[in-house]
Parts: sequence; C-alpha cells; structure tokens
Amino acid sequence: MGLLVVGSVAFDSVETPFGKVKDVLGGSATYFSTAASYFTDVQLVAVVGRDFPDKHIQFLKKRKIDISGLQKASGKTFRWKGKYDFDLNQAHTLDTQLNVFASFNPKLPETYRNTEYVFLANIDPVLQLQVLRQVIKPKLVACDTMNFWIEKKPKELKETLKYVDILTINEAEARELSKESNLVKAARQIMTFGPEVIIVKRGEYGALMFSDSGIFSAPAYPIESVFDPTGAGDSFAGGFMGYLSSVDNIDDANIRQAIIVGSVMASFDVEDFSLNRLKKLTNLEIENRYNEFKQLTFFEDL
Amino acid sequence: MGLLVVGSVAFDSVETPFGKVKDVLGGSATYFSTAASYFTDVQLVAVVGRDFPDKHIQFLKKRKIDISGLQKASGKTFRWKGKYDFDLNQAHTLDTQLNVFASFNPKLPETYRNTEYVFLANIDPVLQLQVLRQVIKPKLVACDTMNFWIEKKPKELKETLKYVDILTINEAEARELSKESNLVKAARQIMTFGPEVIIVKRGEYGALMFSDSGIFSAPAYPIESVFDPTGAGDSFAGGFMGYLSSVDNIDDANIRQAIIVGSVMASFDVEDFSLNRLKKLTNLEIENRYNEFKQLTFFEDL
Repeated sequence: MGLLVVGSVAFDSVETPFGKVKDVLGGSATYFSTAASYFTDVQLVAVVGRDFPDKHIQFLKKRKIDISGLQKASGKTFRWKGKYDFDLNQAHTLDTQLNVFASFNPKLPETYRNTEYVFLANIDPVLQLQVLRQVIKPKLVACDTMNFWIEKKPKELKETLKYVDILTINEAEARELSKESNLVKAARQIMTFGPEVIIVKRGEYGALMFSDSGIFSAPAYPIESVFDPTGAGDSFAGGFMGYLSSVDNIDDANIRQAIIVGSVMASFDVEDFSLNRLKKLTNLEIENRYNEFKQLTFFEDL
Repeated sequence: MGLLVVGSVAFDSVETPFGKVKDVLGGSATYFSTAASYFTDVQLVAVVGRDFPDKHIQFLKKRKIDISGLQKASGKTFRWKGKYDFDLNQAHTLDTQLNVFASFNPKLPETYRNTEYVFLANIDPVLQLQVLRQVIKPKLVACDTMNFWIEKKPKELKETLKYVDILTINEAEARELSKESNLVKAARQIMTFGPEVIIVKRGEYGALMFSDSGIFSAPAYPIESVFDPTGAGDSFAGGFMGYLSSVDNIDDANIRQAIIVGSVMASFDVEDFSLNRLKKLTNLEIENRYNEFKQLTFFEDL
C-alpha cells in the first residue's frame, strides 16, 4: 500500500536525568519512518541541510525507507534542544533552530503521488495541506499537531483537519483545541472539525481512541527505565500507520490492534536515546511485546 | 466469608465545578461498605457523634451492613470540607474537624473477630493495627493510606504494612512512600515493606496492579460528566474487596476481575454527590458496566 510521511528530520540535543546526547539523529519524520518501516514501505518527505551526514542517509536506506522526497537544501539541518526532568511526561524546549525548515516547500516526487496512506507529522498545517493536495487519492490520512499551531495558526489547522481521518494529539492539546476540559467532550468536539477518529496520547498513561464505534483504552507499557521520551509520539504514529497500511483494512478491530502496535513501538523508543533502540529491533521482539500488552490488560468475563 | 472495614463515617461538604453540597453522608468506611454491600456481608467499625441522624443508620441497615461495630460517642461526627477545581484529580481540603474521631478507640464486637477479609481504610496506622490485632485469623488484609500518615507516622505505617497483603495507594503517595520516582521501582520497593500486591490508583487514568504474577493495567471508565470524585478510591476498594470476599479465591485472575469490579464501582460513585449514585445501583447496571470495561480494553491477538 505504501505510507507517505511529511515531517521533520533533525538533529536533537537532549538531556534527561539519565544522560545527555548532542546533535543526534531525530525529527518527527525520522522516528515515524523508522517505526513504520517494520511494517510497510515508507516514503519520506522532508528537508535537511548540507551538514546532514551520509551515515544517516545510509541508515534510512537500510531501513528501506524511500528518500527520493528528502530534499537537501543549502544551509543547516533543523536543530532541537530539549530537556526532561524526573517527570518525563513534559519536554522543556531549550532551543529551536528551524534552519532549512524555515523555507521548506514540500514537493512530492511523481512516484509518491499514488500513495494511499498518509501521515502529516507535526509541522505547519499549511505545509501539511500542501503535501496532502499532491496526493491523488489518499485512502487514509492521519495527522499530528501541537499547541504551537493550535495557538498560532488555528484557522489553517482547522482547514487541514477537514481532510484528516485520524488525528493523534496529546491530552492537553486536545483540551486546548476543543476548549473542553472533559476528554470525552473534547474528542466529540474535535470530530466536528473533520477527523472521524481521535487518538489522545497520554504519555505514561497510554492512549484513548474515540470513534463512532466507541472508546478504546490502551495502556502504556510500564517501563522501569524510561531513558528518553523524545520521539515516543512519532514512534507510536509510525507503528500505528505502518500496521494499518500493512493490513489495508480500516475497521475498529484493526485500529485497536494498530494502537497497540504503536504503543509497542513507543515503548521501545523510550528505552534509549535517539533511534538507538528502534534501529535494532527484531520482529520477534515486537510480537513478544504485543503479547505482553495483551497480558497486561487481560481480565476474564464476570 | 464476610468483610470487615474500619474507617471513617463522616459529614462531607463538597464543592465541585458542577455544584455544592453541605454535611452530606461521607467517610471512607461509608463509601467502602456501600460499594462492598453489593457483593458480600460487610461489618463496619467506625465512630459517629450524637448528631448522626437515624436516616443514615437506616440507610446502612438497608444495605445489610452490620453496624454493631459502629460506636456512637458524645460529641460531633467527623467533618470534612473539600473543593475540586476543573482538574478533578486533586481534592483541596478546606477544613477537617476530627471531633469524635480524635479519641476513637476501635473495639471489635465478638461477632466480628472471625472475619477473614479485612480492609483498613485510610486512618491512623496505629488504629489500623489495633483493629487487625482483634481479628483472630484474617485470610486477606488490604489497606489504604495517604500522604499525611506517610509523613507524620512513617514508622507506625511501616509496622502496619508488615501485616498487610494488598496495599491500595495513589500514584504520588506510592512515590512518596517508596522514595522512587519510577512506579515499577516504587511498587517493588513497597513490596519489601510487607504487601505482596500493590494497587496504584491513578484517578482518571485507572489503576496499575503489581504482584509477583506480573503487572495488570486497568483503565478508568471515560466519563462525560464526572460530578464529584469524593469516595472514588474507597468505592474502588469496596468493589475490589467485596468481590474477592464473595469468590473467596485469591489468585491473579480473581484479583484482576476484582480490580475491574472496583473500577466499576468508582465509576458510578463519581457520577453524583455523596452516595447518591451508589445507593441506587442494580446488579444489572454493575454487570453491564463491567462488560463496557471489557469492550473498552479489548483488542485481538496479532
């Protein structure tokens, strides 16, 4: 089926209570593609600068990610610097350098335009829509966003949401976007903007999915050593969309399974800095952890 | 089997964003007994003042709760005044008047001393132990506590915990008691104090159970109109212990089911002030909501 993602490819500098790293591979599209690559063919749309080293290109190629839509522009690659305290739920941004991302003009290679599964990672909603318009007949469009766009570009975001089937959003942002403090009401409100499925990400508390078929509550995997939460949301989305694209049947049962697959990928991501854990996964590890999620939530009928 | 509870019977004055009530029936033992009474015979140990009206006594009797251990002392009944903001996870205590509770000296009627299931609701750990010593051969002892006792009576609390099988505790308190920020490590640390099973209550995020058999993650029921969270933890414990006492078989599968039953009772409790919702439940409503919890968490194998 193929799965297209537009988002950022970046250098991250991250400090957590457990260590720090400088200028490591990061970015929403990088985490997404890597996670999704375990399930389906991924087509990446992003921009990097002249400073982007060949070893990262080789890594993406090794994961069989199609990078014909990865532009190389004059200037430096997008850089993000962040810090997490013991409360690992909240990233504190210390510095953001947009660099080549500031003038990013996403253009889809002709070979990308027939893709049916599309993920619009967390970037300017204007760029999200610009990408979506170049896809001829998308079957499933999912989208992520953040408080920055909700506050700075609410009109543009709502325009994009009209064409989105599934929105992944964190809890505080769902409340902010809907202006509703109760999550059930918030989700219902956001549905009126376009998406039929709302996936509320709650970090260490898992995820809640709202749709016309009902509500699904997915746990987070209780991890003894969360090392670095960077990329968890995008790894979740990558596993989620990668799995849906591979089964190519979007019903409630498959969406639930896809949410668990996404949760599995997020649970691996946070075990190490950057893509260190995601890059060396095996299918057996993924399956085993899926089964652990099953065990984690199972209870008998009354 | 029978289920003994020691705790508070109180008058609550509560304000939430959805309304306010004054001097309504409350208290940990009241919520616990009422929830548990749908599953088993409950024996209540508590103290009230001369101002405690007959209508509340009649209500407890109607729920077939054994109140031969409910002392009536000179003075006024324990009073609690609290407020919740839109973040309904956190109660703000405005006033506490211990009244007759200040000199509470729990004495078990002879008929209570053979009880096998015991719940020590959130009161002074010295009183908890005093009650437990009067039970001849308890089969299962569960206990609740709070930050106040963790800070003011840490030694006494640890002494009581030596004799406790299951501890129910909220998330922040689990971290405080164990001095561990990671919940998995926190639970393991608390197990070294005595309890073999730790149930961490996370409000609108559900509950996590840790034991030698593994970890169980129970969701909270997503409620559109949480009205008043007062008593949710005790209703949870009441459903949990009431169910376990009724099946009288404490294995991992039954503990998981009991946690869901507890979550069901908590989900009803928060729908109205005081015991208004708990008092008019039917067994069918309880069963139906249990099935909704099943539906809420179900996903297929890969």
